[in-house]
Amino acid sequence: MSSKPGNVIGIDLGGTRIKAGLVGAQGEIHLMENYLTCLELGEKKVLKRIAKIIKQLIIISNKNWIEPKMVGLGAPGVIDREKGIVHHSPNFPGWKEVPLARFITEEVGLPVYVDKDANVVTYGEKWVGAGQDLRNFISLTLGTGVGSGLILNGRPWYGSQGSGPEFGHITLEPRGERCGCGNRGCLETLASATYLIKKAQRGLAKKIPTQLSKGVSNSSNPLSAKILFETAQKGDPFCISLFADLGRYLGIALANIVHTLNIEGVVLGGGVSNAYTIFLPYLEKEFKKRLTMSSAESVSIRISFLGEKSGVLGAAKMAMDRNKR
Amino acid sequence: MSSKPGNVIGIDLGGTRIKAGLVGAQGEIHLMENYLTCLELGEKKVLKRIAKIIKQLIIISNKNWIEPKMVGLGAPGVIDREKGIVHHSPNFPGWKEVPLARFITEEVGLPVYVDKDANVVTYGEKWVGAGQDLRNFISLTLGTGVGSGLILNGRPWYGSQGSGPEFGHITLEPRGERCGCGNRGCLETLASATYLIKKAQRGLAKKIPTQLSKGVSNSSNPLSAKILFETAQKGDPFCISLFADLGRYLGIALANIVHTLNIEGVVLGGGVSNAYTIFLPYLEKEFKKRLTMSSAESVSIRISFLGEKSGVLGAAKMAMDRNKR
Repeated sequence: MSSKPGNVIGIDLGGTRIKAGLVGAQGEIHLMENYLTCLELGEKKVLKRIAKIIKQLIIISNKNWIEPKMVGLGAPGVIDREKGIVHHSPNFPGWKEVPLARFITEEVGLPVYVDKDANVVTYGEKWVGAGQDLRNFISLTLGTGVGSGLILNGRPWYGSQGSGPEFGHITLEPRGERCGCGNRGCLETLASATYLIKKAQRGLAKKIPTQLSKGVSNSSNPLSAKILFETAQKGDPFCISLFADLGRYLGIALANIVHTLNIEGVVLGGGVSNAYTIFLPYLEKEFKKRLTMSSAESVSIRISFLGEKSGVLGAAKMAMDRNKR
Repeated sequence: MSSKPGNVIGIDLGGTRIKAGLVGAQGEIHLMENYLTCLELGEKKVLKRIAKIIKQLIIISNKNWIEPKMVGLGAPGVIDREKGIVHHSPNFPGWKEVPLARFITEEVGLPVYVDKDANVVTYGEKWVGAGQDLRNFISLTLGTGVGSGLILNGRPWYGSQGSGPEFGHITLEPRGERCGCGNRGCLETLASATYLIKKAQRGLAKKIPTQLSKGVSNSSNPLSAKILFETAQKGDPFCISLFADLGRYLGIALANIVHTLNIEGVVLGGGVSNAYTIFLPYLEKEFKKRLTMSSAESVSIRISFLGEKSGVLGAAKMAMDRNKR
């Protein structure tokens, strides 16, 4: 059997879904699949599930004369990259010191490299995404939380403890809302889907006039960032105001990172970034107002075009880079 | 005449004073002098003054069988490092596109390297100061403003535009006080001498009870950060509260930079840092409270021991490094 060089399995392990793909050396996706994570099954069974997904991918690959050489895996939480261990993960209840790399390697027989989910997204954006021509940029994933990754001098930045940035937890409102992390007024409380929905629920409870209330109060159609976006698109002032606030705080956060690091770009991804048509004008206006010591024109604000693929692609690229060393 | 290798003249050009020193290859200061800048004389005469100071230093050096090889110069404002030009400088009225390096070179006959004042301070702290054992740290100069410099992977970080960080202008209070830069609620408005004095003056105008009012309202004894510190040391609650607020905001700012970059240390310098005995406990408490995604124990918060010498030493080191390339 001939083997095409450089094919890698990329896995993006999320709280709801596992995204898995077979990625070629140039960033081409030969195959991509989506599976439910089924966190409720517990740590052991989820690990088995990931291994099974990878084994299936290997079988399909081999049938297509493609032989994957290794596995790259992005996982949420506090990660030991070198050992491939998930120390703990706020969104994965019960996960403690999980030997992710060792377990998967033993099951599938390939080298496995593990990194934080937000870091692999950033790898993906740098490799074949909206950040590929940028030397210094931040990538932000606006989803359940706010994930972040930095590329400095063309390479991922991990910092002194090796875990990379946690830009979602910079304080923007010192007396602001309590964040899941314990701090107050974090960027995450101002720009994530979770808090967007919380604020909408509070608005509904206060009977603020909005088109939203019709049909979203029942449990079969729960409030989501997508519904808020669609209602904002219809011109609903309350929903527009939620995205306007989110845009303004992102503008402040981005001015802060440019004042801190003098970077040249920002890539916004994650589910909430799909609402950019609503929030981007507010973001850009606030960013220009706040960025006083540097030219806003020299900073490029971009929306991810890889979308959901960035994690799978970046996990593969991360593995390729580390396997070379 | 024998010449000891590696001696460099370091100049720290400030709005009030010019600090000048002859610095050896190991960071030893053979000679250091302080002169008034006399900004009111205008750009041309200040340039002549700097040249004269350097010429005097060369004469004294030669008498001592030391031959300076080059000049390193830290200057405030927006600097083109490669061309050695001061584009403009908020605290140097009338200075526009000043060819600092070319002018001094022509006058003194030595190569001249120019960088931003906050960047050369950071060079100094990394070379022989409180940051010499740190691989990734920020240095903050708490003075009239809040200057900042970053060392990443052991080297000064300049960023995409080449001008380095402006961490003093990150927003910490979105609806806060207007900063000199035009933004609101910048760190500089919360942790500089200028705003510390403003807040004290406002307190005095409101007749807040304080020991301060005795003897500082007349123009021969104007309010200064030093007087505020001395009054706080005497237990004055109003002055203590000013430094407590400053400490808390610095704590938030430092948690933000650690969440952003995962750095391992902070070096605080500048006149206001002398009041650390008052503000440091507030800073540390707030820092620990805000730093939720990383261990506060892994971050070292240090006070500069080089003090006023950091700029002169760092200017010399910056010149040495650039001359090697």
